[in-house]
Amino acid sequence: MSGVRNLSAALRRARVPRTRIIARPILPQSSCATVLRSFTTSSAARADKQIKYTSDAYPNLKRDSKFAEISADDVAFFKELLGSESAVIDGVTTDATDDIEPFNSDWMRKYRGHTRLVLKPGSTEQTSKVLKYCNDRKLAVVPQGGNTGLVGGSVPVFDEIVINTSRMNKIRSFDEASGVLVADAGVILETADQYLAERNHLFPLDLGAKGSCHIGGNVATNAGGLRLLRYGSLHGTVLGLEAVLPDGTIVDALSTLRKNNTGYDLKQLFIGSEGTIGIVTAVSIICPPRPKAVNVAYFGLESFEQVQQAYLAAKGQLSEILSAFELMDGRSQGLVIESTGNKHPLEGEYPFYCLIETSGSNAEHDMAKLETFLENVMGEGIVADGVLAQDETQFQALWRWREGITEALSHLGGTYKYDVSIPLSDLYLLVEDTKARLTEMGFVGDDESFPVRAVVGYGHMGDSNLHLNVSVRHYNKDVEKAIEPWVYEWIQKRNGSISAEHGLGVAKREYIGYSQNETMVKLMKQLKAVYDPNGIMNPYKYI
Amino acid sequence: MSGVRNLSAALRRARVPRTRIIARPILPQSSCATVLRSFTTSSAARADKQIKYTSDAYPNLKRDSKFAEISADDVAFFKELLGSESAVIDGVTTDATDDIEPFNSDWMRKYRGHTRLVLKPGSTEQTSKVLKYCNDRKLAVVPQGGNTGLVGGSVPVFDEIVINTSRMNKIRSFDEASGVLVADAGVILETADQYLAERNHLFPLDLGAKGSCHIGGNVATNAGGLRLLRYGSLHGTVLGLEAVLPDGTIVDALSTLRKNNTGYDLKQLFIGSEGTIGIVTAVSIICPPRPKAVNVAYFGLESFEQVQQAYLAAKGQLSEILSAFELMDGRSQGLVIESTGNKHPLEGEYPFYCLIETSGSNAEHDMAKLETFLENVMGEGIVADGVLAQDETQFQALWRWREGITEALSHLGGTYKYDVSIPLSDLYLLVEDTKARLTEMGFVGDDESFPVRAVVGYGHMGDSNLHLNVSVRHYNKDVEKAIEPWVYEWIQKRNGSISAEHGLGVAKREYIGYSQNETMVKLMKQLKAVYDPNGIMNPYKYI
Repeated sequence: MSGVRNLSAALRRARVPRTRIIARPILPQSSCATVLRSFTTSSAARADKQIKYTSDAYPNLKRDSKFAEISADDVAFFKELLGSESAVIDGVTTDATDDIEPFNSDWMRKYRGHTRLVLKPGSTEQTSKVLKYCNDRKLAVVPQGGNTGLVGGSVPVFDEIVINTSRMNKIRSFDEASGVLVADAGVILETADQYLAERNHLFPLDLGAKGSCHIGGNVATNAGGLRLLRYGSLHGTVLGLEAVLPDGTIVDALSTLRKNNTGYDLKQLFIGSEGTIGIVTAVSIICPPRPKAVNVAYFGLESFEQVQQAYLAAKGQLSEILSAFELMDGRSQGLVIESTGNKHPLEGEYPFYCLIETSGSNAEHDMAKLETFLENVMGEGIVADGVLAQDETQFQALWRWREGITEALSHLGGTYKYDVSIPLSDLYLLVEDTKARLTEMGFVGDDESFPVRAVVGYGHMGDSNLHLNVSVRHYNKDVEKAIEPWVYEWIQKRNGSISAEHGLGVAKREYIGYSQNETMVKLMKQLKAVYDPNGIMNPYKYI
Repeated sequence: MSGVRNLSAALRRARVPRTRIIARPILPQSSCATVLRSFTTSSAARADKQIKYTSDAYPNLKRDSKFAEISADDVAFFKELLGSESAVIDGVTTDATDDIEPFNSDWMRKYRGHTRLVLKPGSTEQTSKVLKYCNDRKLAVVPQGGNTGLVGGSVPVFDEIVINTSRMNKIRSFDEASGVLVADAGVILETADQYLAERNHLFPLDLGAKGSCHIGGNVATNAGGLRLLRYGSLHGTVLGLEAVLPDGTIVDALSTLRKNNTGYDLKQLFIGSEGTIGIVTAVSIICPPRPKAVNVAYFGLESFEQVQQAYLAAKGQLSEILSAFELMDGRSQGLVIESTGNKHPLEGEYPFYCLIETSGSNAEHDMAKLETFLENVMGEGIVADGVLAQDETQFQALWRWREGITEALSHLGGTYKYDVSIPLSDLYLLVEDTKARLTEMGFVGDDESFPVRAVVGYGHMGDSNLHLNVSVRHYNKDVEKAIEPWVYEWIQKRNGSISAEHGLGVAKREYIGYSQNETMVKLMKQLKAVYDPNGIMNPYKYI
């Protein structure tokens, strides 16, 4: 790819052979932090090392004695009900440790539960009967989709029964005129998107785990991802859902209407509830027409001030075709070079990099807008250097400089990850302040004696969403204590969010007070008590 | 304006003098059904006629004896608390009938209450103290914004105290980088939009009542309007809100963050709750950059099949710049001609008309897309005739053919109005079936002896939202009985909504069962009981 002088060349090229402009209907698989390939790599690398039990990592969590223990009779009931061998993984009356393990632990190998029973209901009705039984018997449960979460929300802590949605995986309907898709919760995001691609539509959510995550899980965790900037949050795009409450009540709010003002919009409560008030079994969502043209540009910039200027320019000039504005700092890109050995697309080194994606219905118009934007940001000296993808391969390659960060970090040891929202002007200050603090405390250095290898920042600039990552050579309690709760206090002072898109799970449950006031927490607990009076739904997590 | 042959001429003109293409930052004031000018006209015309009390029109509604009667002591308390003469309109200890009347009745002159007390708190804290007092004393209240609703939701039925938000009318903050506006509930929608226009942004909601309605009321009723198709619903654009619960609790959920996954998204419950669980006192909302170019085209079409084809073509070809797709049937346009005497923009007569608006960041690109679209729909014979606005005057004139329908109807007598969502393919069938039914029953005819003048349909095609209007020479119980509940049953069979955007209020409260199943209604009642155990918030309405 071409360097600073070559951007003008790239622009010239782009102007002439219009056919070379990428016009691809399928968007790339890209990521906030969850590149599932890194799971395989990591697990292979650490195959010898057992994952620590969450109950050991969080000794303040105690199994609540109000919950019943699973008996052989319970297992018999579930086997009879679900009527299929594959629908019940029984570690109660048989030794099924190996089969159960993938459901007990997460892909990051950070959380591990003690469950001995996994149920895979095949329908909403079966889910209803399973939950009602559990509620009556006071058996705790953990709803689980693709198990791709980052906060330990989808795996048990103790012996909670895992209720996995993978067998509910049918697309129920799609209406091309309205763009409304209705599908079971267990449909994999990528499957849904491929189905839509064949019908010239797009799933209005895209994230790195798309090959594994379930759309029900996406809705239950209010997943954000890469193109929220363009298509908005699930609170706006989800038109309806079907869910099962702990007492077995089937909430049929599976409307396919864009407008329906007949009462409280209760479905919203399930969006982002992380399986604590019910299990989402189906989703109705409005999907936009698939863009006919997609472009990607990658820039080097000298300061965060200039990153902000570039963002404002993109918002103003690319406006309706802007579909991603991603930020990566210099250190994060250095780690990708270190980990992959790939040649960086730009010649020089810069403290900041941005990836800008446009998606539109007319390739020529989009390229013209992009060219005007590039001329502006380069002419004004906002951007120091940049490249523009000229074909599909370059398009994918540029996205990998953003996507590859998580994987690069995972190869280099442990990572303390913080997924936060901060008002835009202060977004990167958190990385600088964290680095300064850890450096002052003597934790950061290039040689092996320092616990911290790097403090890096990247994220969804367009959503004010930063991923702060502290890369460590090994996990270190002193480093952890230096970061927490300091980092949360820092965010609270700026009215930010301690969890922008990953949710609370086990990881953030104690810290909710930094982003929600006492009244809000009280109201949330009140709501939880209304829907789940026995507290069987995903206990030890969330609020 | 030009006819069918002239559309090609219009296209040629559009190609040459690019400067003539409209590039206007301010969008027109346009309407679903609420053109407030018609209020003035209608009230002048019917000044001699008293509005019927809602309690008389709905004799099954009885004042609930659990509510206390307002005493002189209560009034003294409120006067002391609010500390301003203008903040309390006291019809309890003084004769203030004339001053109170505008708060007791709605602009359509369909609903009228018996209140003797109007309070206008000047802050969230005052609202909190007012509500706590009312809750303790079991005094029923009606939250009221601009009082522009269509279902009687914002006026009392009996002696409920009106709590009007007009004195909370400050814009609190606007951040140009993120586009997030924070403003008091009592800010008028048009004021908010003008404030944003000066800062190159747009309020992501537009409706006919914008000159009077409050943004708090918009949020409380989940207003839809003209450009939901483009900017999405308030469930997606509202980032946070502040509200007061009946017990005086201030819900401070006024986040300005686009992503914040820290617990249940409780603010969603207030969006569309019509003042039944609390009073919205402030709103935080994400606003898009103001479009630099806006175009309007107006078409005549031979069948509803072709309207659907035109919609699909617009969705596919105008894609990211499509900002409105409005449908008007021939009869509705005939009534506008009859009422205004204006010359219709097209030469011939057609059974269907569409208005298409585009909004984008580049006038040339938008016009090119529009031209391609026009060539396509005219070349394919989908559209029979059409015109394209060439300047601001024509732009406004074309919108008036859509906006003017409500006003035209109001000049011609009474109207039975139904605001419904129906799957797109059946959208217009409701108008045809209603007309056939009323004709068969002998109600429809051209001369004065027939009660029904016309059955017309128009609406937000892009949102599957139809306004079915039955224009009558005078209100007639037999006609009403012929329509209801038949129309609701018709909608229920097609899984539509009996209230797309107007809400429930008094008008639809009994009919919620046609759009929500028993479980949903039960869950809604449960929620109402949690937030408003004394039931003081906007009683006799909603669920």
